[in-house]
Amino acid sequence: MRVNAYAAPAAGQPLAPTTIERREVGANDVLIDIEYAGICHSDIHTVNGDWGPQPFPLVPGHEIVGRVTEVGSGVSRHQVGDRVGVGCMVNSCGECDRCASGDEQYCVQGMVGTYAATDRDGTTTQGGYSTHVVVDADHVLSIPESLDAAAATPLLCAGITTYSPLKHWNAGPGKKVAVVGLGGLGHMAVQIAHAMGAEVTVLSQSLKKQEDGLRLGADHYFATSDPDTFEALAESFDLVINTVSARIDVSAYLGLLDVNGALVNVGAPAEPLDVNVFALLSNRRSFSGSMIGGIAETQEMLDFCAEHGIASEVEVIRADQVNEAYERVLASDVRYRFVIDASTLD
Amino acid sequence: MRVNAYAAPAAGQPLAPTTIERREVGANDVLIDIEYAGICHSDIHTVNGDWGPQPFPLVPGHEIVGRVTEVGSGVSRHQVGDRVGVGCMVNSCGECDRCASGDEQYCVQGMVGTYAATDRDGTTTQGGYSTHVVVDADHVLSIPESLDAAAATPLLCAGITTYSPLKHWNAGPGKKVAVVGLGGLGHMAVQIAHAMGAEVTVLSQSLKKQEDGLRLGADHYFATSDPDTFEALAESFDLVINTVSARIDVSAYLGLLDVNGALVNVGAPAEPLDVNVFALLSNRRSFSGSMIGGIAETQEMLDFCAEHGIASEVEVIRADQVNEAYERVLASDVRYRFVIDASTLD
Repeated sequence: MRVNAYAAPAAGQPLAPTTIERREVGANDVLIDIEYAGICHSDIHTVNGDWGPQPFPLVPGHEIVGRVTEVGSGVSRHQVGDRVGVGCMVNSCGECDRCASGDEQYCVQGMVGTYAATDRDGTTTQGGYSTHVVVDADHVLSIPESLDAAAATPLLCAGITTYSPLKHWNAGPGKKVAVVGLGGLGHMAVQIAHAMGAEVTVLSQSLKKQEDGLRLGADHYFATSDPDTFEALAESFDLVINTVSARIDVSAYLGLLDVNGALVNVGAPAEPLDVNVFALLSNRRSFSGSMIGGIAETQEMLDFCAEHGIASEVEVIRADQVNEAYERVLASDVRYRFVIDASTLD
Repeated sequence: MRVNAYAAPAAGQPLAPTTIERREVGANDVLIDIEYAGICHSDIHTVNGDWGPQPFPLVPGHEIVGRVTEVGSGVSRHQVGDRVGVGCMVNSCGECDRCASGDEQYCVQGMVGTYAATDRDGTTTQGGYSTHVVVDADHVLSIPESLDAAAATPLLCAGITTYSPLKHWNAGPGKKVAVVGLGGLGHMAVQIAHAMGAEVTVLSQSLKKQEDGLRLGADHYFATSDPDTFEALAESFDLVINTVSARIDVSAYLGLLDVNGALVNVGAPAEPLDVNVFALLSNRRSFSGSMIGGIAETQEMLDFCAEHGIASEVEVIRADQVNEAYERVLASDVRYRFVIDASTLD
């Protein structure tokens, strides 16, 4: 089955329209007619080759929402007509301890990424900037109908990437949570942490988006460009979620943590970061990382967002605007996520 | 009250005999006739000025065991004749949330170190290389009589420094724990982790002390100088306790951690360490620190050690051997802790 898509022909090249092959619908597969595909900063890193060599042509996109149009004979979990979603992974071994405990993202055999990865059948995966995708049914999520399809799309990556560490590190009533950076990930983290009952502080470069931050549920908003911020907030947080992939002064952020506090990175700068170990010893602090979330947890997050009326703030674009959108993401000129209307690929 | 002691007259100078003043026994104080004082690597760092300027003359020593010879009118916790111990702190505010929850080592007003610190009355504390010490009763531990006094002495720092993170990060049956370095701290960590029921692996520079490690309770012993070690043990530990203060390749050690694993430093190198954030994102790992333990937890550790017959392996020396002992500690030529016989100070 050949379908329309937008692909990068080579590293750093602009994306262009093309067609790609999607596999036959197998017994445990679901064919999805894509409605929306989100643009994640990782898409840009990947096509630019920032994270090493990639298989080209490459169709990015790991925030996908659409309708089921066909299911394999063995599929009971999804039905034709269901609104479904696909996130950052489309397969995992399903047998290791980690898969068994719902941590498919840490599958011992390696999770299969939604694009630029080698699937278990040996083929190279292609992402969501496309009209259709065929995905193993166990890696397809149900999108609650109460959520707007376009606004729900970024939940599949930005939503789960922030929900999972907030849940794991017990954000909730009585907890003080800081979110570093108010971008695609940060604006989800603020909403989710607030809905979980935590007291939420945004730490952003400037106060430019303060109004947005408070509207999204933040209780406080501070500029990290102001050195007084680090003094005023010293030792005050239980959890700091860092959504910024650029190099940060880790030790300064560790200084914001109370006893047993954790600074959790959900993005990764290319170069190593310096850590002053004394900042870890004081207050028994941790510097941690978290990568998306498991399938069951992603479903839990979607249901949580539907229950609390949480979604992403999106700017819906045509597929032929994707290169311009990439430029604007790099310039931090988006509030807060671009979503491609896949009908413009037809 | 003037008492005999061994003090460093200035930074980097050899220690020499002297006398120092101990305060009157206040209502909540205990006067201790010191029997043994352990030599901790921190003593050497401090007198050498590695950790910044210090008040001199300086009497080190924060592993102290002795007998109570006098108690203040308000003291009910200890009685004359009791064998007691003092660790790394001799005071704390006793009123903040952290003190209230048993984390006096992270006291909001700052714990008062056993030496080279400013006590709450404004005087400078002097440590255990001395015949007597006066300490606030709430910061004095009971030493179970079943423990050998000399062998119990290092428990007050090396013991609690390793017990606390092992407990906090749930070392126990079914857990795989690695201990980096088999020195004063490491040889305690191995015994305690083993007694807690964990499967224990020693990661040491070479296999030189393998026999000791296995005798102390390790199930496995690997040389970190062998690069195969890092491949063979990849993703296998729940907890890695790093007792080595020298610079280590943090990202390589993080690679040894299973999902949710933690690498916990109990020592701190002077310079910052590089951390590859991808190593944290994979497996949701943490790089953490831990500093001694609270008073109640220290008592719990002493009782645990008595119950399990755990103590330090010590070499008892005369006070006039302390400078030579420092040289040998720096050359890693001690198995596993020097303890000064305080009667040689009389």
